[in-house]
Amino acid sequence: MIIDCHGHYTTAPPALEQWRKRQIAGLADRSVAPRVSDLKIGDDELRASIADHQLRKMDERGIDRTIFSPRASFMAHHVGDFATSSAWAGICNELCYRVTKLFPDRFVGAAMLPQSPGVDPATCIAELERCVESYGFVAINLNPDPSGGHWNAPPLTDRFWYPIYEKMVEHRIPAMIHVSTSCNPSFHTTGAHYLNADTTAFMQCLTSDLFQDFPALKFVIPHGGGAVPYHWGRFRGLAQELKKPPLKRHLLNNIFFDTCVYHQPGIDLLAKVIPVHNILFASEMIGAVRGIDPETGHAFDDTKRYIDASPSLTSDDRRNIYEGNARRVYPRLDAALAAR
Amino acid sequence: MIIDCHGHYTTAPPALEQWRKRQIAGLADRSVAPRVSDLKIGDDELRASIADHQLRKMDERGIDRTIFSPRASFMAHHVGDFATSSAWAGICNELCYRVTKLFPDRFVGAAMLPQSPGVDPATCIAELERCVESYGFVAINLNPDPSGGHWNAPPLTDRFWYPIYEKMVEHRIPAMIHVSTSCNPSFHTTGAHYLNADTTAFMQCLTSDLFQDFPALKFVIPHGGGAVPYHWGRFRGLAQELKKPPLKRHLLNNIFFDTCVYHQPGIDLLAKVIPVHNILFASEMIGAVRGIDPETGHAFDDTKRYIDASPSLTSDDRRNIYEGNARRVYPRLDAALAAR
Repeated sequence: MIIDCHGHYTTAPPALEQWRKRQIAGLADRSVAPRVSDLKIGDDELRASIADHQLRKMDERGIDRTIFSPRASFMAHHVGDFATSSAWAGICNELCYRVTKLFPDRFVGAAMLPQSPGVDPATCIAELERCVESYGFVAINLNPDPSGGHWNAPPLTDRFWYPIYEKMVEHRIPAMIHVSTSCNPSFHTTGAHYLNADTTAFMQCLTSDLFQDFPALKFVIPHGGGAVPYHWGRFRGLAQELKKPPLKRHLLNNIFFDTCVYHQPGIDLLAKVIPVHNILFASEMIGAVRGIDPETGHAFDDTKRYIDASPSLTSDDRRNIYEGNARRVYPRLDAALAAR
Repeated sequence: MIIDCHGHYTTAPPALEQWRKRQIAGLADRSVAPRVSDLKIGDDELRASIADHQLRKMDERGIDRTIFSPRASFMAHHVGDFATSSAWAGICNELCYRVTKLFPDRFVGAAMLPQSPGVDPATCIAELERCVESYGFVAINLNPDPSGGHWNAPPLTDRFWYPIYEKMVEHRIPAMIHVSTSCNPSFHTTGAHYLNADTTAFMQCLTSDLFQDFPALKFVIPHGGGAVPYHWGRFRGLAQELKKPPLKRHLLNNIFFDTCVYHQPGIDLLAKVIPVHNILFASEMIGAVRGIDPETGHAFDDTKRYIDASPSLTSDDRRNIYEGNARRVYPRLDAALAAR
C-alpha cells in the first residue's frame, strides 16, 4: 500500500473561496459577513473536484491513500480573530470530512486548527477533538507562525503549546508542522516561508528538551525537512556544541520528514542522510509546483518516481517509506486500515 | 591556489567585545559610552589571534587565502541606531584591514556595512568606499534583515537597496548576503536564521527582475545557499510557474553559492545540482560549527575534504571552485593577486 501523508484540498469548488472573501469583507463591514450555512456545495461538486484532480493523479501514480487536510495557504490564521479562524476551520475541516466519506478507501482526514495570533492554543482543542472523534481524522496541521511571516509566537518548545501536545498524545495523533500564507513581503509563501518554517521548527526542537516532556509526541516536518537534511552535518555539529545527545537519540524518535522534494538529487540526499525509519512518503500534489519538469518530462511533484529510482533504497526501505512508517506515526490511520 | 571566500574574524581579542559591551551600555547611559579611540589592540595581539587560529587551520588544510570580514553574528545591526552601527562597523573593518596588512599574502578584506533598521542604505556608502579605496577590500557583506529576525526591511529587490547596488557595480565588488544575530526567539541564529536568510534572498531574486536592472551585480549566497540546492527542482518549478526564464539564465549569471555545507552528502548534492561555475570554495571556519565530526574524525567545517572527495567533480572543476570562480566573482581580488 502507498500512503501519501501530505495532501491538501487545493481544488475545492470556487464557492469556498467566495465564502472566505465574504468572510474577510465582513471583518470591515459586519453587514456583509456570511453565515456558515450560506456555503452550499453539493456532493456531486465535491466528488468532481476530487475525481478529476487528486484522485486521477493518485490512480496514475499508484497512490492508494492520501492524508488529506484543508489547503495550507488558505488557512491564513493571521486574518481576523479566533472567531474568524474558528468558523473557517470548521468549514474547511467539514469539507475534507465529506471527501473522506465520498472516497472512504482513498482519503483520510487531517485537521486544520482555528489558530489565531496571540490566542491561547487551548482554544483549538474543541475543533481538534471534533475532527478526531466525529470525523475520524488521524492528524493535525500545526502552524508555528499564525502571524503569517512575522514570527511573533513563542517557539514550538514553549509551554504555550503544551495544551495541544497533551491532546495529541491523548488521541495518538501526530502534527504536521505547516505554516500558511506569508503576509510578510520578505517571504514568498511556497518558495521561502514554507521551507524556512521547516528548518526553524527543527532547530527549535533541537535546542530544547521538548521530547523529554512528551516522549510520545510526533511531528512530521514537511517539504523534506526544509534545509535540514542538506545541512545534516551542521545540525549534528550544532547539537554536539549545545551538549545535546546525538540527533538520532535526541530527535528522531519524534520527528519525521516527508518526501516533498521535487527532484531526484534531493530525494537521493534525503534517503542517504536521514534514517529510512524517519521518512514518510508524500507529494503535496496539485500544490506549490504543478508543472512538468522539462528535464524529465514528468510532474515535479510526482515524488514516487524519485523514490522508486533512488539507488540507496532497498525494497524493504521503500515499503517502510510508502506504508510502514506512516502506519506507525499515524496509529489512528493504522487502526482504520486494519478495521477495513 | 585555494581561496576561501567566507571567513570572519571570530577570534578577535576580547578587548573588542568589551568595547562593544560598553557601547551598548552607553545607549542607555551616555556617560559610560566609549570613544572609538578607547579601543587599543596592539599588532602582536592581532597577529596572535590570527596565527594561532585561522592561519594555523589554513596551513593545516592547504588554504592559501581567505576573504576576511568582521564576525557576522557581532554585526548585530539591530542594536542602537545608525551612529551605533557606524562606529562599530568602522572599528571592525579597521581590525580586519590591519589583519590584511599583517598577513598580506593570506587575507584580503570584505566590509561590514553600518546598516541600521529603517535607515536608508545610502548611508552605508561612505564606509563601503572607505573600505574599498583605503583598505583594498574586495567585497561587502549585505544584511537583508538589519532588524535581526523581524524581517521588516524591503526585499533585496526593492529600489530601497539600489544605492548600494550602484556602488557595488561601480567598484566591481560582490556582496555576500549574510544576516547577523537573531533577536527573535523563534530563530536560532546559526541553525535557522542564517539558512532561512539564504533561502529567502534567493527566492526574492527569483520573483524579481533585479538582474535586468543590474546585469553586473553579483551576490554570493553563503551556507551552500540555505535550502536552495536541496530543493532545486522546487525552485526550477516555481520559476516556471512564475513565467521566469530558466534559473540558469534568470539568476546564475549573478548568484553564486559557497561551500559551507558540513558533511559529504550535502557537498555532493551541491556539486551535482548547481553548475560548477556558480560554486565558490568556503569554510566559514571557526564559525558556527567548530567541533570534530565523530563520524569522520575531522572538523565539520573542513569543507575542502568534502570537495576533494566529491565524485562528480573533475580536477578542472575543483580548480574553478577553489580559485577560478572566486577570481571572476571578485575582480578586485583577481587584480590584487595579479599585482603581487
